[in-house]
Amino acid sequence: MSTSVIAPTAKLGAGTRHGDFCVIGEDVRIGDGCVLGHHVIIHDGTTIGANVRIDDGAVVGKRPMRAANSAVTKDADLPPAAIGPDGIIGTHVVIYRGCAIGRKVLVADLSTVRENVTIGDFTIVGRGVAIENFCTIGRYVKLETNVYITAYSEIEDRVFVAPCVATSNDNYIGRTEERFKHFKGVTIRKGARIGVGAVILPGITINQDTLVAAGALVTKDTPARKIVAGIPAKEFREVPADQLLDNQGWKE
Amino acid sequence: MSTSVIAPTAKLGAGTRHGDFCVIGEDVRIGDGCVLGHHVIIHDGTTIGANVRIDDGAVVGKRPMRAANSAVTKDADLPPAAIGPDGIIGTHVVIYRGCAIGRKVLVADLSTVRENVTIGDFTIVGRGVAIENFCTIGRYVKLETNVYITAYSEIEDRVFVAPCVATSNDNYIGRTEERFKHFKGVTIRKGARIGVGAVILPGITINQDTLVAAGALVTKDTPARKIVAGIPAKEFREVPADQLLDNQGWKE
Amino acid sequence: MSTSVIAPTAKLGAGTRHGDFCVIGEDVRIGDGCVLGHHVIIHDGTTIGANVRIDDGAVVGKRPMRAANSAVTKDADLPPAAIGPDGIIGTHVVIYRGCAIGRKVLVADLSTVRENVTIGDFTIVGRGVAIENFCTIGRYVKLETNVYITAYSEIEDRVFVAPCVATSNDNYIGRTEERFKHFKGVTIRKGARIGVGAVILPGITINQDTLVAAGALVTKDTPARKIVAGIPAKEFREVPADQLLDNQGWKE
Repeated sequence: MSTSVIAPTAKLGAGTRHGDFCVIGEDVRIGDGCVLGHHVIIHDGTTIGANVRIDDGAVVGKRPMRAANSAVTKDADLPPAAIGPDGIIGTHVVIYRGCAIGRKVLVADLSTVRENVTIGDFTIVGRGVAIENFCTIGRYVKLETNVYITAYSEIEDRVFVAPCVATSNDNYIGRTEERFKHFKGVTIRKGARIGVGAVILPGITINQDTLVAAGALVTKDTPARKIVAGIPAKEFREVPADQLLDNQGWKE
Repeated sequence: MSTSVIAPTAKLGAGTRHGDFCVIGEDVRIGDGCVLGHHVIIHDGTTIGANVRIDDGAVVGKRPMRAANSAVTKDADLPPAAIGPDGIIGTHVVIYRGCAIGRKVLVADLSTVRENVTIGDFTIVGRGVAIENFCTIGRYVKLETNVYITAYSEIEDRVFVAPCVATSNDNYIGRTEERFKHFKGVTIRKGARIGVGAVILPGITINQDTLVAAGALVTKDTPARKIVAGIPAKEFREVPADQLLDNQGWKE
Repeated sequence: MSTSVIAPTAKLGAGTRHGDFCVIGEDVRIGDGCVLGHHVIIHDGTTIGANVRIDDGAVVGKRPMRAANSAVTKDADLPPAAIGPDGIIGTHVVIYRGCAIGRKVLVADLSTVRENVTIGDFTIVGRGVAIENFCTIGRYVKLETNVYITAYSEIEDRVFVAPCVATSNDNYIGRTEERFKHFKGVTIRKGARIGVGAVILPGITINQDTLVAAGALVTKDTPARKIVAGIPAKEFREVPADQLLDNQGWKE
């Protein structure tokens, strides 16, 4: 006998299984061949493609929270969360309503993906990663463990962000009314790479195939295909040819 | 029929709702108009004000853990956790017994608040933040995503801490018996601001309205109303007048 | 009446208790006198020693996830997770199958321990710590809050890693086929200590009783019993004699 609570209007595909104490809300659509662990919560209206694995304690389709004094006060009418086929959602992951995730995406344990975020196919969102609201993440991106992507960021295809990289979006650091006009996340162009523990300031563009060295503090836009390093980060040398994106033999 | 386990001595206010598979312990008091998600655990004796939202998988009132070789060995008799009205507790948050949280406080997803902590009204504790034991956090404070507040810290009103800031409290770094006398967290005075990815050493005071630049390493106390930057952080220039706390037109 | 789901082949020791909505899988063995909170999930085959405390929402014995484009593609036949006696597993912790944890180990809230990891006796794994796969952690180690230990690392006995330290294992940063031959984590020798917010590059050895200062970027192997500091880290001075491991009077 099932210990889970599944709304009568939810539809689970052929061969889809779930563990104990799951909660599956109204009008949820789950494709064929999915495997849900124990204690999984899928909120109303969420759609999930075929062959997705969702691990214990994951929460999909959470409604945004609004703090009394949050900088973001508009409460939009968000579409339900949508997760493409063939992906994996890790343990205790939190995915918000208004988030669209492509196919073959891995969202690893304890990470969070906020509302108004899109994530392209074949991307890896590492353990403990936080992607804030209003971000666009491309295809074949790797965000490694504990990476922090600030709101209003754009990350293009084939970007690689090493563990514990931090980003920011408010040069006014919480002061002045002006700041509300100027919130700007980071832009990371196609194939750029960011080393472990680097910090990127608000509004910065990391250009195509730039390599930001480990521990760098990026205070201005970076030149394409160069390595930048240091605090503040300065141009250091060319990215080795064999590491350039175009020389990897990747099809797309 | 409810799937939750609610102790007979627990009292839930008028209009308070809860999801599936919640566990509400003995003598818990929850005010009117609260909304608890699924899988919420409220431990014995906890009090929660009116109109609080508590999201899926949150745990409130956890008893401290004691490691075999932890530096903190005293096991005090802690009062139950107390959460003021009108707040939000995020998904998979962990709040300890012996923690007192004010009104209109947001504690975002996956953050932890340890025992012997007080948090003032209107404060935001961001996603993934960890506040260790014996900390005092003021009113209208913002601790952004993944901020780490070490034990024995004091953070005054209107402080802003940007994402991924780290603090520490042990200059002896785990050696000598001496160190137990000298554990000292950080003190962040009213209106001070800390930029993304900064690191603050044990016992440091960040003075009133100081702005610590992104990525700085703060090794000594900072001057009020100055910007400090670099590794180690040095005085850089005045905080722009329009960014000073007194010039924001905030009432309190 | 129990609300938990316990497989008929699971064996729980004398005096072992569990909370509500737990799931205990096939062939699990739990020793005497253990205390499991609510919503605890113990996957098939896991063994747990006597007198272990496992807090709410912890997941033990999770099977690895494999991303479509993960660098690690081999899927080994992992042994079940094994946890020694007298330890504590915190709230929402995730421990993988193929992980062996010693006695009197604390794994604090929201931390993750991946497959093919061993952790020695009396070690503390702090809140939010992530230990990736193929790591060896010694005895009496302290990994403080939010420390990140990259895959293929070795950490010897009595090492102390302060909060928010980051490590890495790929000098090619996700490019070239070459890189698969060169993944190498960090090696931290007996008694070494790493200060808050330090970053350690791939393949680095931190030698015996080295002290890495807070905020340092370690780009080459460190000398034993010296303090290294700065970006990049340079030899600074001797570790004070009273802080050397041999002078602590510790028995082992």
